[in-house]
Amino acid sequence: MLVIGDEILSGRTRDENICEVADVCTQGGIDLREVRIVADVEDDIIAAVNALRARYTYVFTTGGIGPTHDDITADAIAKAFDVELPYNDEARAMIEKRYGDKALSPSSLRMARIPLGASLITNSVSAAPGFCMENVFVMAGVPIIMRAMLANIAPTLKGGRVVAARTIKVGVGESTIAKGLGAIQNQYPEVKIGSYPLMGKKPVYTEVVLRSSMLEMLDEATQKVQTLVDETHLIHGVIIN
Amino acid sequence: MLVIGDEILSGRTRDENICEVADVCTQGGIDLREVRIVADVEDDIIAAVNALRARYTYVFTTGGIGPTHDDITADAIAKAFDVELPYNDEARAMIEKRYGDKALSPSSLRMARIPLGASLITNSVSAAPGFCMENVFVMAGVPIIMRAMLANIAPTLKGGRVVAARTIKVGVGESTIAKGLGAIQNQYPEVKIGSYPLMGKKPVYTEVVLRSSMLEMLDEATQKVQTLVDETHLIHGVIIN
Repeated sequence: MLVIGDEILSGRTRDENICEVADVCTQGGIDLREVRIVADVEDDIIAAVNALRARYTYVFTTGGIGPTHDDITADAIAKAFDVELPYNDEARAMIEKRYGDKALSPSSLRMARIPLGASLITNSVSAAPGFCMENVFVMAGVPIIMRAMLANIAPTLKGGRVVAARTIKVGVGESTIAKGLGAIQNQYPEVKIGSYPLMGKKPVYTEVVLRSSMLEMLDEATQKVQTLVDETHLIHGVIIN
Repeated sequence: MLVIGDEILSGRTRDENICEVADVCTQGGIDLREVRIVADVEDDIIAAVNALRARYTYVFTTGGIGPTHDDITADAIAKAFDVELPYNDEARAMIEKRYGDKALSPSSLRMARIPLGASLITNSVSAAPGFCMENVFVMAGVPIIMRAMLANIAPTLKGGRVVAARTIKVGVGESTIAKGLGAIQNQYPEVKIGSYPLMGKKPVYTEVVLRSSMLEMLDEATQKVQTLVDETHLIHGVIIN
């Protein structure tokens, strides 16, 4: 995923799109491997898009496809793919329809510029479309629009086996169970076991998350962690709710 | 900035550290140029650290320095810099002091492994330190610990001129002011003008944000945008609160 926008990097706006894309990927059996956030700088966008599209099956971008001068994502994508960026009749018709009788300004028309060869991603919120260029899905940065676009493309994505997750709460700090967890991880390489301390809360506790697409392995490993945790709680006398 | 952690990419945990680092950078006159989020995969961490530390003045990492098997950031950093990862006496003393009379487990001791040549970043929350290796600052992923570490290193960072920001609310969609804004942007290249539509809210409005370290330019450009907005509101009869 590539998040494009000065406002995220300056701290002015807190990103809301990464966890949306992450959720949709996880639910669809797609392993989100990397996210990059870059500024509204054409060369930076081009470099990131080219690095990511060469490396991964899909790339999702958010941000920079509006009508103002700082919206340069379509330009950058066209340059990354070395294609023209003409006005797209279909995109223009979508925007005109939304504007009704009002004349389209050159600024609104800017949103109808789509790289040659791309297909459109419709959105019901603002009408201005995103687009898909080969394996790169270009979406809006405004979360309500991004979600509408993501909902439209999600059914078209090919995922692998869906990864299931199990969470076990542990009423002690993670150091106490670290050795046992490591042993279980070694025994079940197909299950990814993560340990997440919840600090700043009393009583201290830890969440252990097991993830795998192989359900039988997952349940076996989960049972072993549960046994480890039960024994640890017996020793440390901890009860958590 | 490099965020390390499966839990962010799976959507299980929503990152809280990016906007903290972004805020501290902005306040210190440091231009945050790029963020990457990678999984708990050693090769991915090494590749990202090496790419970022070659390109930027500072790199801030978060995540993966706890006591469990999935905490591999220290190992990856040592490999990225091609140095040893010995137990650090000072780090060990910090952790032992917090544990008091209790014997240190091998898992807790894991957190005292610090790449050779790094200096420690103390934290008052969990006692286990982060570290700074050349231009790379390695911090915890747990937000409350990360903030304590960030507060300790912030005064040591060298920033440029602090970038000031001005925000103007506009009671119309951004297409309406796009042309005028673009003209002002062309006139003031030293001022970065961003336009952010607030969708899903009625009435529709837009925030224009101007950012520059050159205050006189910034105020001039802001005045021009304000005049543009006043005229636009006169034409469109919009009053916003």
